[in-house]
Amino acid sequence: KRKIVLENARVDKDGHKHFMAKEIAEQPVAIDRALKAYMTDNAEITLPEGLDFTKVERLTMVACGTAFYACMVAKYWFERIARLPVEVDVASEFRYREPPVAPNTLALFVSQSGETADTLAALRYMDGKADKIVGLVNVPESSIARESDVILPLHAGPEISVASTKAFTCQLSILLLLALRAAEQRGLPLPDGMPGDLRSLPGLIHQSLAGEKQIAASARSLAKAQDIIFLGRGQLYPLALEGALKLKELSYIHAEGYASGELKHGPIALIDEKVPVVVLAPRDELFEKTVSNMQEVMARGGKVILVTDAEGAKIAGEGTHEVIIMPQIPDALAPILYAVPAQQIAYFTAIAKGTDVDQPRNLAKSVTVE
Amino acid sequence: KRKIVLENARVDKDGHKHFMAKEIAEQPVAIDRALKAYMTDNAEITLPEGLDFTKVERLTMVACGTAFYACMVAKYWFERIARLPVEVDVASEFRYREPPVAPNTLALFVSQSGETADTLAALRYMDGKADKIVGLVNVPESSIARESDVILPLHAGPEISVASTKAFTCQLSILLLLALRAAEQRGLPLPDGMPGDLRSLPGLIHQSLAGEKQIAASARSLAKAQDIIFLGRGQLYPLALEGALKLKELSYIHAEGYASGELKHGPIALIDEKVPVVVLAPRDELFEKTVSNMQEVMARGGKVILVTDAEGAKIAGEGTHEVIIMPQIPDALAPILYAVPAQQIAYFTAIAKGTDVDQPRNLAKSVTVE
Repeated sequence: KRKIVLENARVDKDGHKHFMAKEIAEQPVAIDRALKAYMTDNAEITLPEGLDFTKVERLTMVACGTAFYACMVAKYWFERIARLPVEVDVASEFRYREPPVAPNTLALFVSQSGETADTLAALRYMDGKADKIVGLVNVPESSIARESDVILPLHAGPEISVASTKAFTCQLSILLLLALRAAEQRGLPLPDGMPGDLRSLPGLIHQSLAGEKQIAASARSLAKAQDIIFLGRGQLYPLALEGALKLKELSYIHAEGYASGELKHGPIALIDEKVPVVVLAPRDELFEKTVSNMQEVMARGGKVILVTDAEGAKIAGEGTHEVIIMPQIPDALAPILYAVPAQQIAYFTAIAKGTDVDQPRNLAKSVTVE
Repeated sequence: KRKIVLENARVDKDGHKHFMAKEIAEQPVAIDRALKAYMTDNAEITLPEGLDFTKVERLTMVACGTAFYACMVAKYWFERIARLPVEVDVASEFRYREPPVAPNTLALFVSQSGETADTLAALRYMDGKADKIVGLVNVPESSIARESDVILPLHAGPEISVASTKAFTCQLSILLLLALRAAEQRGLPLPDGMPGDLRSLPGLIHQSLAGEKQIAASARSLAKAQDIIFLGRGQLYPLALEGALKLKELSYIHAEGYASGELKHGPIALIDEKVPVVVLAPRDELFEKTVSNMQEVMARGGKVILVTDAEGAKIAGEGTHEVIIMPQIPDALAPILYAVPAQQIAYFTAIAKGTDVDQPRNLAKSVTVE
C-alpha cells in the first residue's frame, strides 16, 4: 500500500467555507488550464506523441466512482463523434471478469489520484493485451501514470475534498478533446463549432455558478427528503448517476440515478409525493422523450426539479416543482456544464443537513485498497 | 400501440396466494421445460437452425428491466466461457446513442412479452446492421419474435405477476446454454460438467424454495427498513441489481444494488446500523474479495444478511446479522439459483408491508410505450 501525502500546506480554502466549495468555484480556471494543455490558440488539438486512433478498433475505458461516470459520458462521445466502439467498466468488475481483448484495442484508465487500487490492477491486466495503455490522471507522479504508455495529465490542480468536482469536469473536457481528435484521425467531420466551442466552457460554467443561490434555497427542502431520484438520457444519464453519487456521499440521503427510459421498468414504483426527482434535460434531440418520462413522474405525484435551458423551461416547465435554468450550450458540452448543478445540489443539501462536506463518513479521498 | 390480452381465463393461482408465489414455485418445472427444449437426453445442446457463433466477433444484447439484468449475467458467461466480447445496454439508451456496429455482430434481444417498445425499437435499429437478429421471448407470436431472424422461445409458461420471476430464470438458463454452445462452436472446452450439470438446476431450485420460511421471518424486519443495499461481484453483481429492483417494485422500499467493489467509491457513506445489506456471495473465486467488502459494511454498523453456501457460511458467517444458506452449486449456475432468495426477499417483504404483490403501483406488465 502506498500512502498519499496531500500537500495541505500548499493549498488553503481561499476564503471558501470548504475545499469542495473552492474546488467547484475553481472549475472555470481549471478547465481553461486543461484545455490550453491540449489545444493550441488556433483550436488545434495537440495530444502527446504516440496517441494515434487511426488504427484503433476498440476503446476500453476503466475507472471507479466518479471517474467511471466520466468514462460513461465519453463512451457516448467516442461512439457518436469518432464512430469507435467503446467498452466501459468499473475497475473492480473489469479486472476479475477476464474480458477477451480484441486486436487493436486502446485501453484508457482514469483516476484522479492515479493510485486507485482496482484501476491499477485493471491496468496491469491489460498490460501486454492492449496495444496501448493510456492514463488520465491528476497526479503525474502516480503509479497509474508510471505504468501507462501515454500519460494525459489532468491539470486540475490539487483536489482536497473527498468528493471529486473539478477533477471530474477536467476529465470530461480532456476526454471530449480526445474523442474529437480520434474523429479527425479517423477522417470523420467534427460536430459544428468543435473543438473551438470548448473554449466557451469556462465562461458558461462561471455563469452557471451563479445558480448557487437558487440551489441553496431549494436544498433546504431537499435535505428533508429520504430518497431522491436523478434522471437523464443519453450523455446526461451518467450525470444522473454522478448527481446521485455526490448527494449520497455528502448528505447520506439515498439518492439514485436512472436512465429516464428505464424508470417505467420498475423504479417508478418508488415515486410518490415525498420523492423529489431531479431531471437533467437540456433541450437536445432526446428532450421530448425525457420530458415524457418526467410527466409520468408528475402524474404519480413526484416533485420534479427540472434542470434545463431557457427553451426547455418554456416547453416543459409547467407543473414542475422547480426549474433550474442553465445557459444554452452546444449539445456535446452539456454533460460538462450540467455537472455544476449536480455538484451544487449535493453541496448545499449537505450544508443544510450539517454533514461534514469535505470529509464524509466512511470515505477516503484515494482508495488504495481493493 | 398494441394491446396485450392476458389470458387470465386459462391461468389461475393454483392454490397460491399470489401469481408471483405460484410463478416462483413453478421455476423448477419451467426451467426443466426450457432446458429440454434446447438440450437432448444425451446433454447435447440443440439450437434453432441458423444460430452459428463460429464467425461471430461480437455479441450485442439489449433489453429492459429484469431482462436486461439477465443479459448482464450472460455477458460474464459469453466472455468467460466462449471468449466472445459482449456489449449489453438498456434498450432506451441503446436505440438513441447510435452505436457503431462492428462487422460480424450478432444482436440478441430479450423480452418476456416480446412487445417491449424500446427493445423492439432497438431491434429495428440493428436491422440491416447486425449479421443476425435473435429474439429470446416468452410469447412466440410477439412483435419481437416476428421481426427476429431466429426466435428462441422461453417456454416459461404464462407469467401473470408484474414482477418477472420464472421468465428471468428461464432466460438465464437458455442464455447459459447459448454461451456453452457458442464455446463449442468456437472450439473452446466447456467448464467441467457442462452442459449436463444444468440438469441439476430444477432440483437445486426446488431445494432452495424451502428457504422461504426463514426469509419470510427475516422479511418482517426488512419491511421496517427505509433503505436496503444489495451487493454482488462478477456474475452475482447483476443479481444484486435484480434483487434491489424486485424489492423496489414490490415493497416500495428504496433498495439499490451495487458491485461490491464500488461500494467504497461513494455509496458506503449511506451505511449505518439502520441499513440492511444483502450480500450475494457463493463460495467462488471472488468470495474473499466480496467478504472483505462485507466486513467494511459491518465495521460501519451495517446489518449484513449473507446469502451463501454452507462453506461460505462457515468461513464468513461470523458477525453477520443473518445467513441464508443455499445449496452448493457449480459456479456458472449460481446466478440462476441465487435469483430465488432475491425473489423471496422481495415477495415476503411486500407481504409484510401489505403492498399489492401482483400489481404494484405505477407499473405495467408489458411496457408498450417508450
